[in-house]
Amino acid sequence: MSIDTDTTTRLTASVQAFYAAQMQLLDAGRVEAWAGTFTEDGVFAAGGIPEPARGRSTIEAGARGVAEQFDRAGITRRHWLGMVDAQPQDDGTVRARSYALVYEIPEGGDPILRRSTTCDDVLVQDSGSWLVRHRTVVRDGLD
Amino acid sequence: MSIDTDTTTRLTASVQAFYAAQMQLLDAGRVEAWAGTFTEDGVFAAGGIPEPARGRSTIEAGARGVAEQFDRAGITRRHWLGMVDAQPQDDGTVRARSYALVYEIPEGGDPILRRSTTCDDVLVQDSGSWLVRHRTVVRDGLD
Amino acid sequence: MSIDTDTTTRLTASVQAFYAAQMQLLDAGRVEAWAGTFTEDGVFAAGGIPEPARGRSTIEAGARGVAEQFDRAGITRRHWLGMVDAQPQDDGTVRARSYALVYEIPEGGDPILRRSTTCDDVLVQDSGSWLVRHRTVVRDGLD
Repeated sequence: MSIDTDTTTRLTASVQAFYAAQMQLLDAGRVEAWAGTFTEDGVFAAGGIPEPARGRSTIEAGARGVAEQFDRAGITRRHWLGMVDAQPQDDGTVRARSYALVYEIPEGGDPILRRSTTCDDVLVQDSGSWLVRHRTVVRDGLD
Repeated sequence: MSIDTDTTTRLTASVQAFYAAQMQLLDAGRVEAWAGTFTEDGVFAAGGIPEPARGRSTIEAGARGVAEQFDRAGITRRHWLGMVDAQPQDDGTVRARSYALVYEIPEGGDPILRRSTTCDDVLVQDSGSWLVRHRTVVRDGLD
Repeated sequence: MSIDTDTTTRLTASVQAFYAAQMQLLDAGRVEAWAGTFTEDGVFAAGGIPEPARGRSTIEAGARGVAEQFDRAGITRRHWLGMVDAQPQDDGTVRARSYALVYEIPEGGDPILRRSTTCDDVLVQDSGSWLVRHRTVVRDGLD
């Protein structure tokens, strides 16, 4: 694995920067903007949901429901995506496998590490930004 | 958000590298060097302190007091700053919003996740390095 | 510390990308491939082991034993290396000091933060990739 080439380094750093902006949107409750980081036909598959959410609007609706639940409960969420391993594919997409940790902080309470997962993305570029075409989140210890 | 441009990628990676070096200084008890990563007129605002610390020497004094408390208690601290979203501003400064986690490890004990916060910085360049002109730390679930 | 130079930024981002790929190998139980990220004469020193493991095959054997223990116990491990401070040395090697967090996730259980450590590496380049020549892991609060 030629990990130190400028290409792979730039790619990995670029994906990490995208993940930071993307997940800050979700944690801030900006669900529509977060859903906008998926392609129109994007797919979000997670162990916690019965079947994959297909399409930006479906992904947005699902995320909004969850965000509203946490908002009502007064719980702040922080998603950390890291340890990103990004590899360009022959078809022009990028496959990125990363780890994700989800923290929950109740009002006036201490932070709780709620989840450890892997995150497997197929990323595409669109007018100077990344979009997630397909995301598979697998919960460690469960899925 | 054109997150994958070389400019934004380099900027974000550069700020992340700065944060790593900066917070390793604080966790190592090198308080003067850590304070030196703020501008002379730098401001450090955190929910835990009654009012913002203004000026490098004031920031250093405050950090020294805290560091000595942890040192006496035999507690190691580890500050993780990550999920960095850095954006260049028209005035030449950089605004960086990141997440921060603070771990405490007592002598012979297990690590404890003590805090989850956001960190909003105004960064400026000075002779080839970053300096923090203004930092606002907001504790999740409290502030 | 001229942290924002393109050189240091690229170096730090490159090492972070290497760490992500390297530790994903270990967490996936791909011990031989993980050991292959050390030089043939690589040294792995950690507080938990009586004396440093010297040589790729010894490092691999040690890691395999640990991996099999966790596998039998049904525990998933996630190693996060971050807050990387990488500095080029005059001899052509790179010294990288980072923080590491080790999470354990039992089958069907919640994630547990097991360890916080520092990781001091001497890295060398070999045919387009990084290799660890010497790694010293020091457990916070214990070593």
